[in-house]
Amino acid sequence: MSYNTPVKDMMFVMTELAGLEQISTLPGCADATFDTARTILEEGAKFCGDVLAPLNVTGDRNPAVWNDGEVTASPGFKKAFRQFVEGGWQGLMHPSEYGGQGLPKLIAAPCLEMVKAANLSFATCPSLTDGAIEAILLAGSDDQKRRYLPKLIAGEWTGTMNLTEPQAGSDLSMLRARAQPHDDGTYRVFGTKIFISWGEHDMADNIVHLVLARLPNAPEGVKGISLFIVPKFLVSEDGSLGARNDVRCLSIEHKLGLKASPTATLQFGDDGGATGYLVGEPHRGLEYMFVMMNAARFAVGLQGIAIAERAYQKAAAYAKERVQGRAVDGSSDQPVPIIRHPDVKRMLATMRSLTESARALAYVAASHDDLAHRHSDQSERARHRSIYEYLVPIVKGWSTELAVEVASLGVQVHGGMGFIEETGAAQYYRDARILPIYEGTTAIQANDLIGRKTVRDGGEMARSMLAGVDRTLAELHAHAAFRRNPAFGAMHLHLAAGRTAMESAIEFILGHFRSDPNATFAGGVPYLKLSGIVLCGWQMARALLVAADRETSDPSFYGAKMAMAHFFATHILPQAAAFEAAIVSARHGEGVLGLAEEGF
Amino acid sequence: MSYNTPVKDMMFVMTELAGLEQISTLPGCADATFDTARTILEEGAKFCGDVLAPLNVTGDRNPAVWNDGEVTASPGFKKAFRQFVEGGWQGLMHPSEYGGQGLPKLIAAPCLEMVKAANLSFATCPSLTDGAIEAILLAGSDDQKRRYLPKLIAGEWTGTMNLTEPQAGSDLSMLRARAQPHDDGTYRVFGTKIFISWGEHDMADNIVHLVLARLPNAPEGVKGISLFIVPKFLVSEDGSLGARNDVRCLSIEHKLGLKASPTATLQFGDDGGATGYLVGEPHRGLEYMFVMMNAARFAVGLQGIAIAERAYQKAAAYAKERVQGRAVDGSSDQPVPIIRHPDVKRMLATMRSLTESARALAYVAASHDDLAHRHSDQSERARHRSIYEYLVPIVKGWSTELAVEVASLGVQVHGGMGFIEETGAAQYYRDARILPIYEGTTAIQANDLIGRKTVRDGGEMARSMLAGVDRTLAELHAHAAFRRNPAFGAMHLHLAAGRTAMESAIEFILGHFRSDPNATFAGGVPYLKLSGIVLCGWQMARALLVAADRETSDPSFYGAKMAMAHFFATHILPQAAAFEAAIVSARHGEGVLGLAEEGF
Repeated sequence: MSYNTPVKDMMFVMTELAGLEQISTLPGCADATFDTARTILEEGAKFCGDVLAPLNVTGDRNPAVWNDGEVTASPGFKKAFRQFVEGGWQGLMHPSEYGGQGLPKLIAAPCLEMVKAANLSFATCPSLTDGAIEAILLAGSDDQKRRYLPKLIAGEWTGTMNLTEPQAGSDLSMLRARAQPHDDGTYRVFGTKIFISWGEHDMADNIVHLVLARLPNAPEGVKGISLFIVPKFLVSEDGSLGARNDVRCLSIEHKLGLKASPTATLQFGDDGGATGYLVGEPHRGLEYMFVMMNAARFAVGLQGIAIAERAYQKAAAYAKERVQGRAVDGSSDQPVPIIRHPDVKRMLATMRSLTESARALAYVAASHDDLAHRHSDQSERARHRSIYEYLVPIVKGWSTELAVEVASLGVQVHGGMGFIEETGAAQYYRDARILPIYEGTTAIQANDLIGRKTVRDGGEMARSMLAGVDRTLAELHAHAAFRRNPAFGAMHLHLAAGRTAMESAIEFILGHFRSDPNATFAGGVPYLKLSGIVLCGWQMARALLVAADRETSDPSFYGAKMAMAHFFATHILPQAAAFEAAIVSARHGEGVLGLAEEGF
Repeated sequence: MSYNTPVKDMMFVMTELAGLEQISTLPGCADATFDTARTILEEGAKFCGDVLAPLNVTGDRNPAVWNDGEVTASPGFKKAFRQFVEGGWQGLMHPSEYGGQGLPKLIAAPCLEMVKAANLSFATCPSLTDGAIEAILLAGSDDQKRRYLPKLIAGEWTGTMNLTEPQAGSDLSMLRARAQPHDDGTYRVFGTKIFISWGEHDMADNIVHLVLARLPNAPEGVKGISLFIVPKFLVSEDGSLGARNDVRCLSIEHKLGLKASPTATLQFGDDGGATGYLVGEPHRGLEYMFVMMNAARFAVGLQGIAIAERAYQKAAAYAKERVQGRAVDGSSDQPVPIIRHPDVKRMLATMRSLTESARALAYVAASHDDLAHRHSDQSERARHRSIYEYLVPIVKGWSTELAVEVASLGVQVHGGMGFIEETGAAQYYRDARILPIYEGTTAIQANDLIGRKTVRDGGEMARSMLAGVDRTLAELHAHAAFRRNPAFGAMHLHLAAGRTAMESAIEFILGHFRSDPNATFAGGVPYLKLSGIVLCGWQMARALLVAADRETSDPSFYGAKMAMAHFFATHILPQAAAFEAAIVSARHGEGVLGLAEEGF
């Protein structure tokens, strides 16, 4: 099997770090028990391993094909998608009211992760449908909900998000697509949208495009953007499909990776206007998109973890099998599997500890999102909402940056074979490269982390994270194993140093945001990475505490958890201080800003 | 033009940091003056920009084609290669005795860099010919020299290096290819060699394969390997081409990048044995290869610098042109070119400062190699030889690791467009990935740096590097600009900290090499990266001193040099301490070594 879902690792994080037990006490979550969760994960793991994972390579070699406006998905994808929806996977976390299973995000997250790991190109399709579902749930009319949600949640139809235009990538204020009101209350949508994942394909009967466009006389900039439903086929009152809408797929892109995920250029309105339906109120499109975007960004963070896990599994398997070179300690006079070489082990430990720690932070975030939605106390809901929103840009930005690094190490572990496409490691390196770009580049995540998440509340949430780290530091210090287990001392030392570096960065940002925005934002990505390292390190410290208590019950499993925490402490956490140095250096127009544009 | 050779930057390094003036006083180097060097570089720049650079994309889209044992190079390559050899570029650094120009390596290095930057796939062909020339110069008989060198140096024939076999990649002790002596003093060579760059092609009349193989009854392991010349066409006494030899190209690889460089599987001796000629003495093949390898590894280091430079140029051009988003400081109410965004500037500064600093270290190494070959004093030659040999694994390992990072940042600067193959940024990301692998992976460079270069002389050379850094630190401190120019203070602070980290790593390695080899080698790659950062930072500090003195003569040029030095000090040098923490953590089976193989 080319991908083995790490169900035990996932369950460990869910139960020991992300509080599955508490989640199962929330209204509507009575089913979210340990046993149910494990059953769902194991069932998903089987489907992912048997059906989706084998199609990952074939999709890469046989990308989706465009022909005269029609797109045919890669061989096997249509059938696999049918099995996916028949298994109910599309509806996993959506309301039972519309046919979903209404599971908490904490259980949905590992399921999403495994689908993405098994086949990232495939997974982007249901992921975009999730986005469309959330948009309609958030702002759609009752009629829209009734008409679209059951089909989308059942997976009979898929969804897309149409934001980008050639001149408007990260900057949505530059959108030009327009929507003209029509007598019957619908709109005629005109414009060109690019980079639309699964914007056209043959896997479902209909595609529900969610499209950002401007109404006539709308205000300029981002405050004049509205959201529309533009279905590929019009949907009649009884839910049956009507006429083909005026939206055409002009082409699909030739990409570095994710080749089985067709990236479409869509032309709306060349034949008189595509029929569209306003979602929510006029001019509030971007606001709705931002709510959806938190979910979409979280999902892309999971993509990073997913591809990192898969790259790790492939590299570890190769390293155990490939025999080459003598042991440096002279312990064998025969060639040994390369995993015996310390640097190969270092690379594998880097890959694994980065992946495990990012998974832990993501699932913890998912749990806060569940509490934000379902806690009985309103102020608790608000508090968890804030935590989740603080964590989203970090989960998205850091998990995807590390995915590129992990996939690159995966190639390196394979040596020359890694550069040969048939080996497969190169595909992860290519696929991963989009993740720090789409759904907002790492810099855009960093801007969000600085502006909306750190500065807006005067640093309150950021400092509360530090307080959480402090509690764990105290637990490490007070633990019986502190003196005898060197992982405890190493973790305490480096997590404390990382926490100090993070505090310094937070204070720098709070102190300079208004007086020197260029200097502040120059440190944005370093701040995001620093936060990622420290908060992921915090989760590794928490895992270390649990593992030390449980060790005797399952020595190999918990021993590995302690080893990875120890490795993370000594190899990853020390990088935090380097990011801090970069952040605080950027003042008075120095450092990053020392060279004028024309000097480059 | 898609690539502009940075002649001015190159000349700056050559004259101000690498001592071109001193090199021009060496025997046989009277022509190596500033003016001559600049003329050569400018001529090369024109050829690279006009002829080679435009073929880089076409080669990627139209890889070399295999058909029934014959390989046709990418369109335009054969003609370009003809122009290359007619321009005398193949013979640049080879002895005039055999038709070369005999230029010092310090002038050859920028020429090699620009060819590699313009077209990396193309450049690997003459680069391998360089390797074959050096092997024959080193160990060939007079007859072999007379028969092969003039043709190779003229570029009429090309060369290859045949080391790798399916079961013997990094570990050459596992080689199985064999050579049977024949009555006429030649040998019959049998075996399969893989990953042979330009192992078959149609750009030259003949291909001179340098092949490692075992003689009958040779000792096992690396001490039983001999080196053979196996020409594609046999060469008669008068130099004319004779019969086709018994070597066949079975296939070429389907690779992640470097697609226009055919990577061949060669089968020797399927038809009775390929005729081979022993080079030098029996069983000393690996020794000869190691001498050549220092040159080849240095050349691959230049490949890293080359592709980093090109990725930087493309990203900088895009960032100046692409308009998106408002300025964070509110200085413009219109969308601005993305280079105005602090994080884009940070990425470009990272790319540029890494590239400039690696170039400086490589050219300094080249200069030591010239002194090692040509200095009139024998002990000086030996001293410079040691310095060069210490630097080679760092130039190779660090320049190629950073090339992957720089190329990845280049994609990131382009945003979504970077993921589209037509944009071109993705090609650099794909091409760069082989560089930390071939000619010895980064771990193998690190093993060399530890074993042969740091431990063997008891740390003498490593410590002498620190002494050099100390002298520059003193110069920074004593400079009149120290108090007024914040780049000086920042550089002094972070270079001193980096130097301390490097010293700690060196002492850890010296102290643990024998008692705990696993722990020592677990820190090998971190030690190599740490050394790369500190020694490159040292060159940036030296550049800063020069630039501060020259500033008024060319404010924009020297101002940029100071800004890049300042940036490197605050953003790159602080990473040194993180590597030190990783290195010294690996003791008592902890850290990297804490998890047994079966735990992965």
